[in-house]
Amino acid sequence: MTETTLTVAQLTDRVTAVFQKASLNPQQAEAVTEVIVAGERDACKSHGIFRIEGALRTVKAGKVQPQAVPELVQQEASAIVRVNAKGGFANAAFALGLPVLAERARTHGLAALVINDCTHFSALWPEVEAVTAHGLAAMVMCPSYATVAPTGGNKPLLGTNPFAFGWPRQDQPPYVFDFATSVAARGEIELHRRAGKPLPEGWALDAGGNATTEPEAALGGAMLPFGGHKGSAIGTMIELLAGIMIGDLTSPEVLDFLGSTALSPKHGELIIAFSPEAFAAGRAGDPFARAEVLFDAIVGQGARLPSQRRFAARAKSDVQGIVLSEAEIVYLDRLLAEGLDAIG
Amino acid sequence: MTETTLTVAQLTDRVTAVFQKASLNPQQAEAVTEVIVAGERDACKSHGIFRIEGALRTVKAGKVQPQAVPELVQQEASAIVRVNAKGGFANAAFALGLPVLAERARTHGLAALVINDCTHFSALWPEVEAVTAHGLAAMVMCPSYATVAPTGGNKPLLGTNPFAFGWPRQDQPPYVFDFATSVAARGEIELHRRAGKPLPEGWALDAGGNATTEPEAALGGAMLPFGGHKGSAIGTMIELLAGIMIGDLTSPEVLDFLGSTALSPKHGELIIAFSPEAFAAGRAGDPFARAEVLFDAIVGQGARLPSQRRFAARAKSDVQGIVLSEAEIVYLDRLLAEGLDAIG
Repeated sequence: MTETTLTVAQLTDRVTAVFQKASLNPQQAEAVTEVIVAGERDACKSHGIFRIEGALRTVKAGKVQPQAVPELVQQEASAIVRVNAKGGFANAAFALGLPVLAERARTHGLAALVINDCTHFSALWPEVEAVTAHGLAAMVMCPSYATVAPTGGNKPLLGTNPFAFGWPRQDQPPYVFDFATSVAARGEIELHRRAGKPLPEGWALDAGGNATTEPEAALGGAMLPFGGHKGSAIGTMIELLAGIMIGDLTSPEVLDFLGSTALSPKHGELIIAFSPEAFAAGRAGDPFARAEVLFDAIVGQGARLPSQRRFAARAKSDVQGIVLSEAEIVYLDRLLAEGLDAIG
Repeated sequence: MTETTLTVAQLTDRVTAVFQKASLNPQQAEAVTEVIVAGERDACKSHGIFRIEGALRTVKAGKVQPQAVPELVQQEASAIVRVNAKGGFANAAFALGLPVLAERARTHGLAALVINDCTHFSALWPEVEAVTAHGLAAMVMCPSYATVAPTGGNKPLLGTNPFAFGWPRQDQPPYVFDFATSVAARGEIELHRRAGKPLPEGWALDAGGNATTEPEAALGGAMLPFGGHKGSAIGTMIELLAGIMIGDLTSPEVLDFLGSTALSPKHGELIIAFSPEAFAAGRAGDPFARAEVLFDAIVGQGARLPSQRRFAARAKSDVQGIVLSEAEIVYLDRLLAEGLDAIG
């Protein structure tokens, strides 16, 4: 099988062109391309070019505005920064709000970026990393669509509701985790379906509320929260904070709006930034140096820091480029040639 | 066996007297009594009078200052409210900081209360509930002492690091969860030990890093995080935010300071308060009414909201009083008569 190696810049150009052909304005196209290329660069395939088709299907269905220009809503004296995505993708809205969030977090010690009326289809770690690049810690969460049964329940209600966190480190990638509050991400179940592989036990219920290992039955039934009632509680917290509190859709409302889980979900997003300098002010010890002691202790007993596989892949991609299969190149070429007509 | 029924007020008087006899000043005694009585009232025995002895042992060991007067450190324009507990119990410091936290959260949309230099031995839900009583959502976390191995590791490093959240509800108790980020709380393992019962599988490792169901071996080894690498990541986040970031001790540093897990841990605490009114401003829908729709949907499919067992016990205790066993009354009487001399 023929493989093609592209630099990050080359893949960025190619994916940006795909999105522009499919009617996204440059601001939208560049922002979504950045996270998709980051997924490929970091060997995080489930958030790579695989996602383009779903994003374009959402455009074609009229459920996301490809020409949206996000709007910053200033609130004086507030630690809340609000960006209305105007029905566009979350990514462009985040890029607009980030510098203001960073400034407010430094002024107040902590601040929140609320993104409203956005379509969301990317991982949260690109946003977490972007906040940590400002020397801030970040906590990020958002709903999804109702696909997860609360513990003790039997029907989809919660989303896979990702929860992500980052802590800045000097001269190396940040400490970052980003996980679904379901046992598995929906993308993982989809990849099992495509590969024809059964799911591990404990991932899902079928439409009747019974345990299943069939990806197809799981996609038509309900996923389960990670960690039993604790994960279910965190998923509920995310509906409350990053859906209801910010005046945006909950996961069941998202599903009602879309009528399908085959489209990218429309909802809001909550990004909280903390200034370690402000929180540690007047106290003994440098927080960044102390964090390294903790990380060393974790690694020193044979445990791993999260995201290290991604960072290793990134380092390799930056030197050797990103390798795409022939099928992937055909897929990109087809999308570039046909635009939204490529979407069935 | 003879049982004694006390009203909440009667038990409060009795426990306050115990703490005052054991050298706590009224501010410290009243604040710690409130959470201990709340534990008994809510049939949450592992946080009830069972805990008095550990608290007094910590006083006797000189690891907590029973006469401490907590100090509020004002920072203008900041959303961070800091209270130095001056080596006393966290509870008195929290009581001092709460009204300022609530005012700042209303002004800025969100705010954080940092408690430094405190001894902590209570659940987090009393604090979560106190924040929700101001109409605010709350996220609360703190380290503990190093008793939990990170996923993939084999030695204690993280604490049981509780994570708690609350959302205010009208005319009924708030939505509240409060759980250890270990599979089980340390108190649960201790209760298994006292009862001579084996632990469920997957709770702990022995000192050699091997799985064990022996409470004694678990207490001498390491507990495991809930939910695998996800719970381990949340536990690590809590070390970073509620230990290192706020300039206070991490769980391994706490253990070094105390030299024992038989004493109440000394560290800091982080309480984040969110104003749903501020976050939802300008958006459609009332966030409190929308939250009820979510709660109804959870309950409607047979799942439970967390803390309902506690709230039911509370309603019963408020009417029928709190029932203590003969052994418990003897225990309280002995503590009241002997003060710190009762502690071996």
